[in-house]
Amino acid sequence: MNTLSPTPLQNAKSPIDRLLALAAADMVAIDGIILERMQSPVGMIPDLANHLVGAGGKRLRPLLTVASAHLCGYEGEYHHKLAAAVEFIHSATLLHDDVVDESALRRGKKPANLIWGNSPSILVGDFLFARAFNLMVETQSLEALGILSNASSVIAEGEVQQLAALRNIDMTESVYMDVIGAKTAALFAAAAEVAPVIAGRPVSERHALRTYGQELGLAFQLVDDALDYGGFESALGKSVGDDFREGKVTLPVIRAYASADADGKAFWTRVIKDHDQTEMDLETAVSMLRKAGALNSTMDEAKRRAANARKALRIFPDSPWKKTLSELADFVVERVS
Amino acid sequence: MNTLSPTPLQNAKSPIDRLLALAAADMVAIDGIILERMQSPVGMIPDLANHLVGAGGKRLRPLLTVASAHLCGYEGEYHHKLAAAVEFIHSATLLHDDVVDESALRRGKKPANLIWGNSPSILVGDFLFARAFNLMVETQSLEALGILSNASSVIAEGEVQQLAALRNIDMTESVYMDVIGAKTAALFAAAAEVAPVIAGRPVSERHALRTYGQELGLAFQLVDDALDYGGFESALGKSVGDDFREGKVTLPVIRAYASADADGKAFWTRVIKDHDQTEMDLETAVSMLRKAGALNSTMDEAKRRAANARKALRIFPDSPWKKTLSELADFVVERVS
Repeated sequence: MNTLSPTPLQNAKSPIDRLLALAAADMVAIDGIILERMQSPVGMIPDLANHLVGAGGKRLRPLLTVASAHLCGYEGEYHHKLAAAVEFIHSATLLHDDVVDESALRRGKKPANLIWGNSPSILVGDFLFARAFNLMVETQSLEALGILSNASSVIAEGEVQQLAALRNIDMTESVYMDVIGAKTAALFAAAAEVAPVIAGRPVSERHALRTYGQELGLAFQLVDDALDYGGFESALGKSVGDDFREGKVTLPVIRAYASADADGKAFWTRVIKDHDQTEMDLETAVSMLRKAGALNSTMDEAKRRAANARKALRIFPDSPWKKTLSELADFVVERVS
Repeated sequence: MNTLSPTPLQNAKSPIDRLLALAAADMVAIDGIILERMQSPVGMIPDLANHLVGAGGKRLRPLLTVASAHLCGYEGEYHHKLAAAVEFIHSATLLHDDVVDESALRRGKKPANLIWGNSPSILVGDFLFARAFNLMVETQSLEALGILSNASSVIAEGEVQQLAALRNIDMTESVYMDVIGAKTAALFAAAAEVAPVIAGRPVSERHALRTYGQELGLAFQLVDDALDYGGFESALGKSVGDDFREGKVTLPVIRAYASADADGKAFWTRVIKDHDQTEMDLETAVSMLRKAGALNSTMDEAKRRAANARKALRIFPDSPWKKTLSELADFVVERVS
């Protein structure tokens, strides 16, 4: 899983910033819970957790829980603990992903496993995951627990499926959508769905917010996968080619491969399936993706998903929360242009 | 965490076998749940999980849950799901431990990470851990969930603390007891405690079974740590020296170091702290541990813990369950002689 690249999000006018402003008091409470619950007498745990969790990121997933809670008129305080739990689950998967992917950068910093080693990253990930469940138990909502524990097993399934599909140039679009639905969108969906659950809202609102989260998560990951090849534009200062170098098969590659001639298919087979890459291959790959229209068509798919997310909000009455969540869906897709 | 060595447990007269016989119907149900819940359309997950979970081990921890449930007269069926959840938590920690410890053998077999690689072991561990929580949610017991999620974070803390203390020849007995209390005994304690919780039994029974599990777990780990240097006797066919080679500081080493003269202290400093070992050093270490009486005194500590475990059962009326759980405590300590 990738996080949003920091630069476009530092734009003070982004819907994320507007949501953060609307939810300022909530986010202070959530940060307090996060800070408190990552403490341990075993010093390596807060050190490592602080490197990742404390250093921020935009807290997009907990923000989804908070905004969804306000959208359905929730007036209690359990959304804070659930939002912190969502962030802990996300952080645990990031710590494990860094070990699995051998990432070089995480949120613009050296990932924890390159500082402390793989073993502490694995074990502190386990710790944060367990602490997430401690927090959920305190909310007394078995339904919310069920939604988030289910999302957790789906995330792990998606990660294993992605690993098993590494370098599989014959991967289908349907398997790709399953993978990103599981590894990325499942937590977005769960983060949004738990809010109407603790608010005791009708099942229609659960479905609507679950759909919003799921489609937003899909749009988010599709954009990330297009950005890994530079997106619409030429290089944006964002490092490109991580997926390519790992042999990760994403929608742009699936589509370019499908429409390639014999020479093109031979190229993709060599660089992905045989994982035989030279220095010039990334540039060739980007140019082939552009010529095939594969980046544009991936972004179009992301836009369709963002539109689905927006549509899912229709059942809610107008409010600043609804407006900003709706704009967030578009922003996730527009952040590249 | 180590598991019981297979040879002595294959003795048909062991209390574990008697408990397995008493709980035969329960264990069939639990094995069914375990098999069902480790399935996934992502084939690598059941393959890898089956290698570890399906291959058995004696299911000591789920057996604790089942025996405790019978001991307090529980008549429902939720103990099966909780027992399966306990085994999944244990399996998840084993998968992660193998990556962390770089183990060469697990339950007499090549560990999963040496067959499938580290990444699948990390991710399938996460999957089993999440599935454990799915199962717990289905039991509808927030109290049991709280006990097991708390144990899970304590286990991770213990593992990190052990990692941080690696090669620390100045480790105190008190830190050592904290580490084994967390990494091993916490799950034994939780596995036993959840039974009176779902049975709605008074707090005195919760405390008694928690104490039984905790003390049994401590005895179990103390014996394991003595066995890693051959225990009372000379080599028992069990591979020795894993802890020594890793630079793991255990009670025998702490006690031998404390009573060593200047030459002895220099030896332990070189082999543990400086991790500078030659082929003959393990033999020298074993002979120094014996001369210092450190293996015997570790076994004495294990016996005291086993006696505490037995004592904790006093509040329960006599029954075959009580008798066999009581014998189990002694067996855990006697399995070496």
